[in-house]
Amino acid sequence: MAERTATLETTIEALTQQKKYPALRDILVTMNPADIAYMFDDLEERTLPLLFRLLPKDVAAETFVEMEPELQELLIRGFSDSELKEVVDELYVDDAVDLCEEMPANVVKRILRQADAETRKLINDILKYPEDSAGSIMTTEYIELRPTMTVADALKNIRRNGSECETINTCYIVDNSKRLLGAVSIRSIILAEEDTVVSDVMEENIISVSTLTDQEEATAMIARYNFTVLPVVDGEQRLVGIITVDDALDVMEDEATEDIEIMGGVTPVDKPYLRTSVFQFWRARIPWLMLLMIGATFTGMILSHYENALASVTALTMFIPMLMDTGGNSGSQCSVTVIRALSLGDIEFSDLLSVIWKEIRVAVLCGVSLAAVSFAKIMLIDRMLLGNDDVSVLIALTVCVTMALVVLMAKFIGCTLPMLADKLGFDPAVMSSPFITTIVDALSLLIYFGIATALLGI
Amino acid sequence: MAERTATLETTIEALTQQKKYPALRDILVTMNPADIAYMFDDLEERTLPLLFRLLPKDVAAETFVEMEPELQELLIRGFSDSELKEVVDELYVDDAVDLCEEMPANVVKRILRQADAETRKLINDILKYPEDSAGSIMTTEYIELRPTMTVADALKNIRRNGSECETINTCYIVDNSKRLLGAVSIRSIILAEEDTVVSDVMEENIISVSTLTDQEEATAMIARYNFTVLPVVDGEQRLVGIITVDDALDVMEDEATEDIEIMGGVTPVDKPYLRTSVFQFWRARIPWLMLLMIGATFTGMILSHYENALASVTALTMFIPMLMDTGGNSGSQCSVTVIRALSLGDIEFSDLLSVIWKEIRVAVLCGVSLAAVSFAKIMLIDRMLLGNDDVSVLIALTVCVTMALVVLMAKFIGCTLPMLADKLGFDPAVMSSPFITTIVDALSLLIYFGIATALLGI
Repeated sequence: MAERTATLETTIEALTQQKKYPALRDILVTMNPADIAYMFDDLEERTLPLLFRLLPKDVAAETFVEMEPELQELLIRGFSDSELKEVVDELYVDDAVDLCEEMPANVVKRILRQADAETRKLINDILKYPEDSAGSIMTTEYIELRPTMTVADALKNIRRNGSECETINTCYIVDNSKRLLGAVSIRSIILAEEDTVVSDVMEENIISVSTLTDQEEATAMIARYNFTVLPVVDGEQRLVGIITVDDALDVMEDEATEDIEIMGGVTPVDKPYLRTSVFQFWRARIPWLMLLMIGATFTGMILSHYENALASVTALTMFIPMLMDTGGNSGSQCSVTVIRALSLGDIEFSDLLSVIWKEIRVAVLCGVSLAAVSFAKIMLIDRMLLGNDDVSVLIALTVCVTMALVVLMAKFIGCTLPMLADKLGFDPAVMSSPFITTIVDALSLLIYFGIATALLGI
Repeated sequence: MAERTATLETTIEALTQQKKYPALRDILVTMNPADIAYMFDDLEERTLPLLFRLLPKDVAAETFVEMEPELQELLIRGFSDSELKEVVDELYVDDAVDLCEEMPANVVKRILRQADAETRKLINDILKYPEDSAGSIMTTEYIELRPTMTVADALKNIRRNGSECETINTCYIVDNSKRLLGAVSIRSIILAEEDTVVSDVMEENIISVSTLTDQEEATAMIARYNFTVLPVVDGEQRLVGIITVDDALDVMEDEATEDIEIMGGVTPVDKPYLRTSVFQFWRARIPWLMLLMIGATFTGMILSHYENALASVTALTMFIPMLMDTGGNSGSQCSVTVIRALSLGDIEFSDLLSVIWKEIRVAVLCGVSLAAVSFAKIMLIDRMLLGNDDVSVLIALTVCVTMALVVLMAKFIGCTLPMLADKLGFDPAVMSSPFITTIVDALSLLIYFGIATALLGI
């Protein structure tokens, strides 16, 4: 894909310089709007409006939707009012709303001024829904049928209104007060006899979400039920919009990115990497680094508290990184698995005890394996091969017992903290590697020195 | 959702004990197959076959597809041959293939014996495609039209074959040798006049994938182009199947889970948390823990190498965790961002230099902020408040310079290693927190002691 557009770009830039507009237009119409938008991203700012004006009206609108906000703004600022109106008229309402959310206030004013009165009202209505709600990502253009219509009537209605709808694959049946009664797929309509009544072919027990449902939940329902469309109703069960599967895919991708970033200790940025400024990255990362740095100073205080013990049995020092890292890694593994299971809905807070019980058993298996391997390694490599006599059998034993206990503690913390965070209404992803590691580091040292004191009498 | 099914479960178990089958059937038919399957997961094994037999044939098949493999196997083992045939006949080919991939060999044999000859051949063909290829997730049931057909003919064809297809929303146009010529949406067919020729309404420049394309790539195309269906062609451009958006959603969810697990240092398990055994978790986690533990022993060796230096300036010890952790966190932040950008296609290897240049500038900003804060903290809290006179200004300076350099080194490693791994054909997710932390830990210590030697002359 990337290669195809790369060579095309060179061709297109050459044709633009030679002003071969008919040829350019011929190339552009064979391309998918998403690919055109992708290519536009890399063009010179001068060339962009020129090429955009070559596109047929419907392709232009679809391409516009796929472009980065910066370029959309650039284009709008160059548009005449009538050019802007042409694009706005072709947009689906949900895309127009997205655009208004991204643009600065004065551009939004111009966009709304060009939209016809009805569309303007729809856009304004949707803009009022809370961010990340089902209402904010729905579109209001769908096919609405009455239960008493015949299939022939329904088809007539679809032919009349279908070209303005984002999808006709599912049509919705409402009563006089717009209450949602059922849904019928275009397949059922086509397969049915012409004089069948719509209420006889419609599906009645249909699943819908409210305008205030979280968008992540709405998306999860689309995935779970294999829907291509999900109806959105208001507080009185009146149909007000639909969410289409392509928007669900986008939401799902964004939510996964957000989870991954939070798990890596970064505030989500919601912009492609190369378009994020150095300052934005700094702002997304520095608060977490500061917080975790302060956390780590406690570990440092523990370490310096036991300085005398370390000075008396110097061989203990070399095992500190291994114990702390293994603890951190064990905890991270566990927290990552639990956070993902929470976000997929595989587990919930009521499963806490069975999760802990499972993790304890995994920890015992892992702890014993690691302890055995490190005991063997200390005895064979450190003592026999490297002839390091400082490392006594008692020290090896101290390290191994610590190892087993550290893994147990780390897995326990790694599974409980994300579940508690979730229960308390925080994003469980916050309780992943960086935080778990910081907490586990300090506790690992305490366990190590505690056991060393007991076994070695330091 | 979870609550709704929880109370329903109680009702259903009660009705089952009272043998009120008609009432049970009435409840079940109002439910979505995905919800029925979810509820079945928690039922007693005895009740399951009984309730399953109450479902109407088509609902039964859809429910079956949504169930966990263990329960599918349980049901199949209890089925008579004719019952099994009824379910298999109702399955779409891609679901039948999924089933064969999950079941043990003797169950697969029984399934294939019950499928009719044609379906059996289709299933066997798809089973031959490599795992994770587009061919392995496609289905072979779609509407195929000829370019010379009129729209009326096309509709007749759709009415005849539509009920067996997974979707009729997009129909494909092929020539005599099955080569893919174009696609037409059901909307265009319905909106067109009856005597229009199909080739006049079809879209010609359509995007397809080959059977051997990676499923992740195929899914990304569906997301990118807002498709609900993507055609799959063989080496000679002949249409052999389609991938539907609902399968793409599943693939996308699985791939995100896989990325997240690998980034947490866990081999992906591909099973819901509560259904994964303790042993499976152990096997998924222990190799990484062992590998990283060995890595950490090098950090330990560096630490013990500088034991004398630490003994001479004991105040250095307390800053070790802070420096190592901040290094690890800086590297993790950077690797997480870069790994996600790679997997979304926002950056590729050719962007390496611009990524490094951006990360260096972010590192300078972060490093200077952290160094300034830790200098202030050491002077104000450690020296003045806690009166720790061991911590000289020179030591504070050593810590701050180290901090800035460690952040710089960590960001550099955090962005280059994932991109190199990707270039070399490995999953870049491997180069995330755990590995980066292990490498950065060792290097941080070397920088610390190097600077301490230079500034403090130890």
